[in-house]
Amino acid sequence: MRRKSSPSAKPELFRNDNMSIYVGRIACQDLAGLVHQITGVLFRAAVNVTENHEFVDHVAGRFFMRTQFEGQADVQKLRTELLKLLPAGAQCDIRELKPRDLLVFASREPHCLGDLLLRHSTREMSANILAVVSPNEDCRHLVERFEIPFHLVPVNALQRPDHERKVLEIVGKYKADYLVLARYMRILTSDFISRFPERIINIHHSFLPAFIGRDPYQQAYGRGVKIIGATSHFVTEQLDEGPIITQDTIAVDHTVSAEQMAKRGQDVEKLVLARGLELVLEDRIMIDGNRTVIFS
Amino acid sequence: MRRKSSPSAKPELFRNDNMSIYVGRIACQDLAGLVHQITGVLFRAAVNVTENHEFVDHVAGRFFMRTQFEGQADVQKLRTELLKLLPAGAQCDIRELKPRDLLVFASREPHCLGDLLLRHSTREMSANILAVVSPNEDCRHLVERFEIPFHLVPVNALQRPDHERKVLEIVGKYKADYLVLARYMRILTSDFISRFPERIINIHHSFLPAFIGRDPYQQAYGRGVKIIGATSHFVTEQLDEGPIITQDTIAVDHTVSAEQMAKRGQDVEKLVLARGLELVLEDRIMIDGNRTVIFS
Amino acid sequence: MRRKSSPSAKPELFRNDNMSIYVGRIACQDLAGLVHQITGVLFRAAVNVTENHEFVDHVAGRFFMRTQFEGQADVQKLRTELLKLLPAGAQCDIRELKPRDLLVFASREPHCLGDLLLRHSTREMSANILAVVSPNEDCRHLVERFEIPFHLVPVNALQRPDHERKVLEIVGKYKADYLVLARYMRILTSDFISRFPERIINIHHSFLPAFIGRDPYQQAYGRGVKIIGATSHFVTEQLDEGPIITQDTIAVDHTVSAEQMAKRGQDVEKLVLARGLELVLEDRIMIDGNRTVIFS
Amino acid sequence: MRRKSSPSAKPELFRNDNMSIYVGRIACQDLAGLVHQITGVLFRAAVNVTENHEFVDHVAGRFFMRTQFEGQADVQKLRTELLKLLPAGAQCDIRELKPRDLLVFASREPHCLGDLLLRHSTREMSANILAVVSPNEDCRHLVERFEIPFHLVPVNALQRPDHERKVLEIVGKYKADYLVLARYMRILTSDFISRFPERIINIHHSFLPAFIGRDPYQQAYGRGVKIIGATSHFVTEQLDEGPIITQDTIAVDHTVSAEQMAKRGQDVEKLVLARGLELVLEDRIMIDGNRTVIFS
Repeated sequence: MRRKSSPSAKPELFRNDNMSIYVGRIACQDLAGLVHQITGVLFRAAVNVTENHEFVDHVAGRFFMRTQFEGQADVQKLRTELLKLLPAGAQCDIRELKPRDLLVFASREPHCLGDLLLRHSTREMSANILAVVSPNEDCRHLVERFEIPFHLVPVNALQRPDHERKVLEIVGKYKADYLVLARYMRILTSDFISRFPERIINIHHSFLPAFIGRDPYQQAYGRGVKIIGATSHFVTEQLDEGPIITQDTIAVDHTVSAEQMAKRGQDVEKLVLARGLELVLEDRIMIDGNRTVIFS
Repeated sequence: MRRKSSPSAKPELFRNDNMSIYVGRIACQDLAGLVHQITGVLFRAAVNVTENHEFVDHVAGRFFMRTQFEGQADVQKLRTELLKLLPAGAQCDIRELKPRDLLVFASREPHCLGDLLLRHSTREMSANILAVVSPNEDCRHLVERFEIPFHLVPVNALQRPDHERKVLEIVGKYKADYLVLARYMRILTSDFISRFPERIINIHHSFLPAFIGRDPYQQAYGRGVKIIGATSHFVTEQLDEGPIITQDTIAVDHTVSAEQMAKRGQDVEKLVLARGLELVLEDRIMIDGNRTVIFS
Repeated sequence: MRRKSSPSAKPELFRNDNMSIYVGRIACQDLAGLVHQITGVLFRAAVNVTENHEFVDHVAGRFFMRTQFEGQADVQKLRTELLKLLPAGAQCDIRELKPRDLLVFASREPHCLGDLLLRHSTREMSANILAVVSPNEDCRHLVERFEIPFHLVPVNALQRPDHERKVLEIVGKYKADYLVLARYMRILTSDFISRFPERIINIHHSFLPAFIGRDPYQQAYGRGVKIIGATSHFVTEQLDEGPIITQDTIAVDHTVSAEQMAKRGQDVEKLVLARGLELVLEDRIMIDGNRTVIFS
Repeated sequence: MRRKSSPSAKPELFRNDNMSIYVGRIACQDLAGLVHQITGVLFRAAVNVTENHEFVDHVAGRFFMRTQFEGQADVQKLRTELLKLLPAGAQCDIRELKPRDLLVFASREPHCLGDLLLRHSTREMSANILAVVSPNEDCRHLVERFEIPFHLVPVNALQRPDHERKVLEIVGKYKADYLVLARYMRILTSDFISRFPERIINIHHSFLPAFIGRDPYQQAYGRGVKIIGATSHFVTEQLDEGPIITQDTIAVDHTVSAEQMAKRGQDVEKLVLARGLELVLEDRIMIDGNRTVIFS
């Protein structure tokens, strides 16, 4: 943990010089001395550690660590050395931190999509949006304003697997790191989901696990709740039941109809998706069963 | 709407002079001119209206109004005059605003109970706590610190209806306006609940409708949520499904175990119950099916 | 207060049929019977009142009312009738609710501007953005994506009044209802401000009155605060001291540098400006000295 | 970092067995390898590290670490070994984590005091309240309900230093770790404050730095703010300018008078003080100039 060079400010996410930034994420059975040994490997590699986070899940007896460092690292070698000292079955993932490539899926509602396009366009978000896929034309004009390719895959009378096959053709053309469902209103098959483990991020328009499934604002109105919310999560084969990344809620009262909830909820959805995605893009998340460990 | 006398501040909830404060709550089919006609009755009665709130549920076509006024009003006469001009089936409730009498039910956990006792003792809450009922001794000492009668009704091997019969004996001794379940961990029978319509207030330790039933914090931990919360609601015959009064949430992260959620949730529970109760005590709530209209 | 026609939902802000929506805002000395009399005028005019809000500032003895109604109203006639029954000095403003015209001012930072352009483009915001004015080119490309005119007014070596004269030339070309300062980093002269009373809305990047003036995030970092925030307000001749419309805050901790505060604050700024503007556009605000009465 | 024994839950703050819990807090110039070296010392001491947090203030080039461990440690020896490897000028504080002793100061308002007494009485707060000191009798009855000594130190016509001398006599009788100002409305002299560096915690009833000094709610009302808040902080010789521990805000609107702000603010004050104090009691705070580094 050294930072002598620049007394200026916290290091930028992506450096402009010829140094690279790396993130290592380690998960294993908890044992004594892990931090000492792991930091020893990094110290001997002469990289400049700028951030360290550890967490022990005492219920499961598991150790999680995220370490961020700068330098010219031999990632393979580092990983090999770390695996030598970690207990059997350890996960150890080290990769350079750089803008990831995203494929965004949208349907009729433009607010989450527009927010991502805007953050992308102003470089607020450190990622490339390669293209947008949608079953209808509603968002084409918006996407094209930002000079991003827009792919229409109409549903027509297609069976779900047939529609997905057409979608997969487009996905295959791009090498996206993540698929982002920005209010994409189609349910995905298990087959589709299983191709992209921990790589599909969804925004659900309720504070899960309340109001799973269709029309959560209508459900919320019917139940007479005084808060509404949104949840960003990884997509697994159980609908709306994947590991939660971020959630937020806002207050509503009796004057707010289901339609108005949907309108007011848009800002929460946008922010919850954007924050969740930022954590993904900075490699700050580790999945622990159906829970997420987030180092931020 | 006149308030010439005192240029000081908003009128206190309960006046010290010989004037009384009244709250009228009206619910009926929505028609043109209702506000004009209702305020006309109040104007001719020469009472001093200090607060007016109206709401039209456009979905159901229903009109709701709360009016607060000061003076020496003949409540029966006012009510009769209002009912004359309101559409058939209208509800019209007018009563003097004064401290209500509460019977508080608790079990092992003291935090909500203690908070109410403290607010009662410092006159922060405009209500009288007549007594506390509990199936065990855990909270006796705390209650007795505040010189409030504590009634133990042990469960032992009693059937639920038999236990409730003993509880009802105690309830019968007091003329409570409301029964407050301050983390009372017993499920009440429909028979019990039906005796006190719109008069039982509960605090549930989750953001309903998520995590209905037992051990909501354990459920929340298991689901890996990033928010926890609490809900105050009227008790109806469906467990945890009565009309919601207030809700709030706080953020948690992966480091927070189920036990720690329970601890952190205590402050939310306290506040959500106290705020919900304050709205009840100021006659600010009208029940609209399974929803609450709250004028605050 | 009648709404028999449609059992559907709350009326949309702007109707599609040939009915108009109006908002009346009344402020005057508080007297008995005002609501009764005002609603009487509206009832006799056979307009369909859909929303009513009243407030009495008991400290100042002033009455405020906002009434929203539909129909084919003769606004001049209504206003005349209302003024007849209101006490001397009353303000009474009635106007049709329709999309207002905005002129947006920006500088280097695109986040608030981009958010407004996006809401405008997706019709989430009921207003027309006529054009954007800026002292530099940074945001031109973003503005042009949305096909909105962009006017550069470079500062160069101009004195402030000379620069403003050039800005006023552009303002003069448009008939904007409101000027919106979306992180416009130029201080305006009293002369400029006095031309647009209650018509200039600013977003300040702190929870005013903390951190008035330059570099509020740097100030916040220096003071070691645990919350940062933003404030939307009307611009008056005292810098950052005009009537506050909306404010919000978010939590920060010791790991957040001044630069990162500025980044995290962007989302709060966007939302606080958007919400404040929405209240302005729906005629929900009345100014009461240096305070705002907001009926929402 | 080992925790094999119990698969149950996160370790309790204070253990019941004969093991002790310790917290080490280290602050020094940032250098490479610090974490590796520090955790090496702990590993060799065979203590069971349960929590580790590190932070580098890249602006100041300073390293901060908090480590929590269990076992039977020789604190002096550990400290000596750590200081050997730390750069010159390092601070290294290790102490057993156990309930601290508090002296609480109050004036007329009972809400913060009552909240602390309640948390103390239900063992929610891991501290002993030794006694309460007050310049008036208002809170005596409340304190005595909880069987805590109450010391009246009337101000009468005493000069501030003379009054403080009498207060110091009482402070001298107790060996308190911290002095907690729970809405104590007396300004303390520099002489008094300098006797208890980093040991006096205050709750200020505004979101500092807004509304320093007297009557913050009246100031907030006058400014027309839409949020109010509270701040817990260490007391230094500059009034309301010591290092901030925690802050929170709640929304208000135009209907909330200064008196009502004061009432609504009470719940925020209580929570902000209680949370701030909890961080102090768990040795989670390190002071970095006028900022706090908080590991939670």
